[in-house]
This record gives sequence, structure tokens and C-alpha cells, in this order.
Amino acid sequence: MSQQAANGVPHRGKVLTLDSMNPNVKRVEYAVRGPIVQRAVQIEKELKEGVKKPFTEVIKANIGDAHAMGQKPITFLRQVLALCSYPELLEDNKFPEDAKQRAQRILDACGGHSIGAYSASQGIECIRQDVARYIEKRDGGIPSNPDNIYLSTGASDAIVTMLKLLVRGEGRDRTGVMISIPQYPLYSAAVADLGAVQVSYYLDEDKCWSLDVTEVRRALNEARQHCNPRVLCIINPGNPTGQVQSRQCIEDVIKFAKEEHLFLMADEVYQDNVYAEGCKFHSFKKVLFEMGPEYSSTLEMASFHSTSKCYMGECGFRGGYMEVINMDPEVKAQLTKLVSVRLCPPVPGQALLDLVVNPPLPDEPSYTTFMKERSAVLAALAEKARLTEQIFNTVPGITCNPVQGAMYTFPRITLPQKAIDKAKEEGTVPDMLYCMRLLEEEGICLVPGSGFGQREGTFHFRMTILPPTEKLKVVLEKISHFHQRFTKEFS
Amino acid sequence: MSQQAANGVPHRGKVLTLDSMNPNVKRVEYAVRGPIVQRAVQIEKELKEGVKKPFTEVIKANIGDAHAMGQKPITFLRQVLALCSYPELLEDNKFPEDAKQRAQRILDACGGHSIGAYSASQGIECIRQDVARYIEKRDGGIPSNPDNIYLSTGASDAIVTMLKLLVRGEGRDRTGVMISIPQYPLYSAAVADLGAVQVSYYLDEDKCWSLDVTEVRRALNEARQHCNPRVLCIINPGNPTGQVQSRQCIEDVIKFAKEEHLFLMADEVYQDNVYAEGCKFHSFKKVLFEMGPEYSSTLEMASFHSTSKCYMGECGFRGGYMEVINMDPEVKAQLTKLVSVRLCPPVPGQALLDLVVNPPLPDEPSYTTFMKERSAVLAALAEKARLTEQIFNTVPGITCNPVQGAMYTFPRITLPQKAIDKAKEEGTVPDMLYCMRLLEEEGICLVPGSGFGQREGTFHFRMTILPPTEKLKVVLEKISHFHQRFTKEFS
Repeated sequence: MSQQAANGVPHRGKVLTLDSMNPNVKRVEYAVRGPIVQRAVQIEKELKEGVKKPFTEVIKANIGDAHAMGQKPITFLRQVLALCSYPELLEDNKFPEDAKQRAQRILDACGGHSIGAYSASQGIECIRQDVARYIEKRDGGIPSNPDNIYLSTGASDAIVTMLKLLVRGEGRDRTGVMISIPQYPLYSAAVADLGAVQVSYYLDEDKCWSLDVTEVRRALNEARQHCNPRVLCIINPGNPTGQVQSRQCIEDVIKFAKEEHLFLMADEVYQDNVYAEGCKFHSFKKVLFEMGPEYSSTLEMASFHSTSKCYMGECGFRGGYMEVINMDPEVKAQLTKLVSVRLCPPVPGQALLDLVVNPPLPDEPSYTTFMKERSAVLAALAEKARLTEQIFNTVPGITCNPVQGAMYTFPRITLPQKAIDKAKEEGTVPDMLYCMRLLEEEGICLVPGSGFGQREGTFHFRMTILPPTEKLKVVLEKISHFHQRFTKEFS
Repeated sequence: MSQQAANGVPHRGKVLTLDSMNPNVKRVEYAVRGPIVQRAVQIEKELKEGVKKPFTEVIKANIGDAHAMGQKPITFLRQVLALCSYPELLEDNKFPEDAKQRAQRILDACGGHSIGAYSASQGIECIRQDVARYIEKRDGGIPSNPDNIYLSTGASDAIVTMLKLLVRGEGRDRTGVMISIPQYPLYSAAVADLGAVQVSYYLDEDKCWSLDVTEVRRALNEARQHCNPRVLCIINPGNPTGQVQSRQCIEDVIKFAKEEHLFLMADEVYQDNVYAEGCKFHSFKKVLFEMGPEYSSTLEMASFHSTSKCYMGECGFRGGYMEVINMDPEVKAQLTKLVSVRLCPPVPGQALLDLVVNPPLPDEPSYTTFMKERSAVLAALAEKARLTEQIFNTVPGITCNPVQGAMYTFPRITLPQKAIDKAKEEGTVPDMLYCMRLLEEEGICLVPGSGFGQREGTFHFRMTILPPTEKLKVVLEKISHFHQRFTKEFS
């Protein structure tokens, strides 16, 4: 370990090195912000410095970041946030009355009437009440208890916290966490970080990425040979796959989870992002309660929501919540204790969440503008979902399931054997080679399918449908041409 | 495990119980929001419902939450935040030009010019640059590299992340984390959560809670019998103890850390909260660099700062940063990857941090008001620090070190043997009994010293000095009377 330092003084290497750091952290991977994105940022800098490229801007379709893609914030939300930030504006007649009332109500619930005070660790009480009422309304009157609502720093925070409670054991008793493949890599990252075992079940690409309980059972039975699977994670609408689960499928999952004694984690952050005709969002909680007390009084679950997606796309505020159902009261006390260590979720994000669950009512002055803005965003997304599927499916070698919901497409790409060999030669994976080439040649930043998981021998990428319609068309065209060029080059 | 459910259907208990949950989480304790605070919240509800008490309000002196205690937000900070939230206000002539310029600059650095976009995971680049310039200025020109700055969700987030990188090993190779006693319980909580080993060194109460390297060495040598101590955590100015470390002491700590091959974590969130005459804040980084390249080119350290303390007290925004020094580049890449899983720190908190490190300049329109507000807060804190020490030291059975810095006093209380016996009888600890009685009788919420750690057989409490001066006087009087009553009752 001893080495000679630059100044000639002998010393014992670093305390913290790749070899001596937490090995779980080393195993963490998060493709959505991986090497492709790092290269994209570099290319942006090169462009600024005047380096010539075959394109003039990098289009980042790697992450569901609506505002970065030009979506405008919803006026009402931002008015209330400005009022909360600088309450002197409450005297300003430029702001509508309902915005002022919402702001005043939030401020009154804050310590010292300031969003600069810590809130309760579980979140501001009146906001948790508003969340509960919102869930009740969404689920046709099924009761929701504000004591079961935990506000969070985006949904990611709540998901990791919930997993942390569940993870324990060594060797064959290590907790297994069941996640879909393809998955959103927060899950695999958290599983690695917590030292748990990832148990993968595959979604059925041929059936529009639907979930088949038979496959989940296969994965479970295999996993039971070597670990202790205790939790089943579902993302609906799907990320990165964009499917919307049928009511029947949700019922099957609930039955399965009960039968197999699994804790259910329902990631429902795209609940307002449903576009395809005939598709409808069914919350796991609603279906659970409709299945009767045999299920609704026993199945333990948590559902997650966020201010980052849907029509608002307010990612930067890191707002979110989870609702826990049938959680053991002693465990709930432990959960409350655990979240208190981080003091509280960001209060501006909590305020924003309050507006999302408590939007302007039809008789309030902001209603018309709010609804107009909201509908415009959702209609544009629906149009872009349709367009994406349509254009990709005209390209030989690209097949694309309908984007029923969420914000992504996860098309399958056929890659020539020579490209696969080339990737191997370069020590990379074929879809990484593909996406890196696309970035260098066209300035389009996607995430390789391997970052989400895919069936052996298949290749995909994830692309958001968020660029403005005209730009999205250009992106789709460019990818189509690139795909053909790439295929030709390696044939 | 089988039990009968309410509906008569037999089932197998819960998936997630106190017995089957993560045992590390069970070991987590966080007194600052522990049972005393939960009871305080309950009492507040009872008061609202009209329950008669010997007091009319609960005064929460348990947590460093300035705004909740009535401190007004700094106008300039909030103006810029309102402008960032609702950029239409940039057209409003009510806002000063410098506030508009700051807001515009922040917005220009955001994706889509919106604080609703995700930022880079490490934080917005121009804000990291501003932080680096701020550190350089603070440290008399010692260079700071923006690449070494990581913005965070409050300081807590960065501290936990840094510890997570460092923790590894099993049995005697488990990472030991050295923390002061008394300590801020985030540290013990994180150590428990990460399954590391807490290595306690005691501060010297008789010498104004100063740190003596001899004691740190004692703790290290003992710990090496059973674990692998790799990191030394220091809080300066001290929480809960309010001491400000001398330059000599910091030099001693640095020498010790280098000698013993320890990673140094310097929690410097109270760097602007120094009140006592003759005391001065010295950053660990500055002292490190002044000690010459033998130290500055080798010692690995991280320093933490926050928007929650100092003169701004903006806890709810969860803003903060850490600077890492001499970190192995491969480990830094792992750190960047790890923080990317949570996407980014809250952007409003990042914006706020930018204003803290880049405040109005003397020739800018907001300067006068800003300086007036800032000085008023710091002067009031200094006055309250003095007052607290003075009044407590008049009470027989209370001894109180000077509050040189930070926001807390940690006085020692002498408790009669009968009170100690009574606590034992009730299955609690003596200072918890004391604080609970104080809460019930006077409506004052403090944290028992046992929540921070103290030498066996000594008792303390932590109280913030944040209530407005007149209220603080009342609080100090009430505690004084209570202490005499309590002593008498148990004598």
C-alpha cells in the first residue's frame, strides 16, 4: 500500500479507494444518467466551444424531464409557489383569489407561516389530508387515512425507504425483491445498494409488455431456491415500456401477492398519463378494495406518486407521496422514525403536491386556464405517443408496441451480427454501441435497453416522447435514417 | 405465524413485522424528533381542543428551526425564489434589479429555463461554480474546484451519502465511524442504518466542550480491537454543544487523521454562527492548506454546509453542499453515480444556496436591506447566546458552558438520586423523565441529553436559543423554576 507522494513524503495510499469502498455501491447502476448522458453533456460543451458536429444541438430524450423539453409550467401551480415563497405578493392584485387562498392555507400550516420551516417528517398534516381526499375521489370513495400518507422527496425517496424497511437476512434468507424486466433502474440500484437480491420477472413484449402472473410465479419459485422473496414491485403505467395494465391483470397480481405472502409496491407515478383508447388507469388500491375484505384487510402494500410526471412535470421540486395499506402499526412507527432522521421532504415540493391533489374547482377563477393548460399537455402527449409508434413501425428492423401510457417508448431493434461482434470487440454491449453512435452522429441521446434489462439476445432503447411535436418528428426521422444506415454499415 | 383475521379467514400474519423488518432500521434512534416531540404535538392538539393545561402554548426548543420560532425570511432570498417560481414577475417593477438578475441567471442554467426541470445530479453547474468561489473567498484564496462540489438535499443527505461510500466489511473489519459525544444524532442514526460501528470519543465539558486529540486516540485504539475505524466526524461549531474549535485544535485533528489514516468529515453547517468574543470560525480546509502540501495533498476530507442554519434558517428548502478534497477520482466517479440514482437535489434549494454563496454586493440595490436583515439575525442570536448562559448559570444545579457558536445550549443538570430511582422504576432514563415533566408542566419541549450521548452519570438537555428574546427569557425563567421545583420534589 505504501507509495511515494509527489512531494517526496512516503504515505499509505488513500483511505477510500475503489477497492476499499462500500462494495454494494460499486454494484449500483443507473443507466438513465449513465455513460451516454455523460458523453452527451460533453458534446454539448464541445458544441458551445465551436467544435463542428453533424448537428447543432443535443436532444436529450433519455429522461422524463418535461420542462427541459420545453413544456411550460402550469400557471396556477407557479403562482401559488411564488406566493408561498414571498408572501408580500398576497397583497398584489395580479394574483387570482384561489391562488392566494391556497397559498395562505399552506403558509398557515407551516411553522412560523414560512415554507422555510421544517415540516413534520411525514409531511404537513393538511397536505396529507388533501392527498387522502384526492385518493378517495380517484378511487370512487374508498377511504384513505391521512396517517397512512407519507410525503417524500420525489417518488424515488419513498421507494428506497420502503425497500429499506423490507430488506434483511444473509445467505438464503436474504430478501428477494421482485422487479419487472424491463424495469426502471432505480429499483435495481436500490436493491444493489441495500444488498438485497434482485428477482427478475419478464414482461411479455409480444403482448404489449403485459404482465403474466405465470411468469412472475416462475421467477418466484426459482428465486426461492436461493433467497427469500418478500416484495413484488410493479410499475403501472409502465416505465420504460409504456403499457397500461388491465383490471384483470391487477386482480391477478393481488391474488398472487396474497397467496405467496408478498408485500406489494405499486409505482403509480404515471397514473394521469394514459393515452390509448380502451386503456384506463386502475389503482392497485381500488382493485384491492373491490376484491373484498379477504384481500383489502390483509394485503400489505404501498403505492407511490410524484409531482414529476403527469401533466405538471415538475421534476425539480422533488415532490411525492406514498400511501401504505395494512402496514403493521409497529412497523409504521419505525417508518415514521426512519423518515424523521432526514427531518422532512422539501417544503416547496410538498406545497406543489398539495396543488396537484387540490387543483382549482370549476367555480374558482383559475379553473378555466388550469384546465386548458392541463388538457393541452395531455393531448399533446397522446398525439406524440401515437406518432412515435406509427413512425417507428414503418422502419424495417424497429418494432414498437403502442405507447399506452407513461412517457416512453421502448422499441425493439434488430441489430446485425457484425454490430454485435463489433460491440464485443470494443468491450461494450450492442445497444450501447448503437446508442453511442446515434449520439455521435445525430446528437440524439437515448438510453440503451440493457440499462433496463431485456430478454437475452434482444435489443432495445428507451426514448421519451417529450420533445415538442415538430422536434419529435425530426427525432423520429433521424433515428429511422440512422437505423437504416447502421444496419447497412454492419451488413 | 398463522392467525385468525377479523373476517374469519385464516392467514399467515403480516409480511412485514417488527421481527421481520430490517434490523438496522430498528437500531436507528433520532431523539431530536423522538417521544418528547411526539408528545408535544399531542399536547398542541389537546390545547386546540380546549383541554386545560398550566400553559397556553407549547414552545418547541427541541430543533434548530429558526422560522418556526418566528425569524423572518431574508427578503432578497425570497424575492429571487418567487421570481424563479413564477418568471412572469420578471416584468414586475416591484422587484429590485439584482434580484431579477440572480433569478434570470439561475433560470438560464435550468433545463427549459425552469426550476421544474431536473438538474445535473451533482447540482447546477453555475451554482457549483458560485459555491467554489464562495469557499475560495472564505478561505482567503485557497482554490476550490467546482468539480469537487456536490449539491445536496440539506447537509444530512450529503453526510449520509459520504458515510455510505465509506462503510464496508464484516466482523472485525467492519468500518468504525468516530463521532463525538455528545453528537448530533444524524450520525449515530446513519451509522446504525448502514450497519457500521459507532466509535465514540468524548468532548471535554470542563473545557467548554473542547476536543482533545488524546481522547480521540484513546477511542481509536480501543475501537481497533474490534472494528476498522476509517472515518473521523467533527462538528464545528458544535451541535449540540455550541463550542467553536480553536485553530490549534483543528491542526491537531488534521495531524491525527493523517497519522492514523482516517477520512475526515467536517460538519461546518454553523460556520456563520459564531458569537463569543475571541472565537473565530476556521474551516478545516483552510487550516489543512495552511499546513502545507504534506497535508493538503494527501488528507482525504469532506466538508458540509447547509441553507438551514446561519442567518437564513431556510430549513424547509433542504439546500446544502459538500466539498470533497483529495478524493480518489475513481471513488468520485462512484459518488457521482450514486447521487444520480436520486436524480437531483431539490432545485429551489439549489437556487437558495446560490443566493447564500452569492449575496448582494455593496453596489447592488438589495445590499443595504440584506445586510441589515442579516446582521439583525446574527446580533439577536449572539445576544440570546449570552443571555442563555447567564441565566442558566444563576440556577443551582444547572451549569452551562458559554454558547460560543451554533444554535444550542447543552447545560448539565444535577438530578437528585430519588429522581434517578424514579426514572428506573418507570423504565425510562432520568433526563427523559425530567424533560417529559417539563413538557407536561410548562409546555416547553427540549431534548434529553441521552439522545445525544453524555458521560455515564451526567445529565443534560439540548435547548435551542432560537425563540425571540422576550420569549426566550420566559423560557429560561420557567426552566429555572421548574428545575428548583423538580429538585425539591425528589429531595
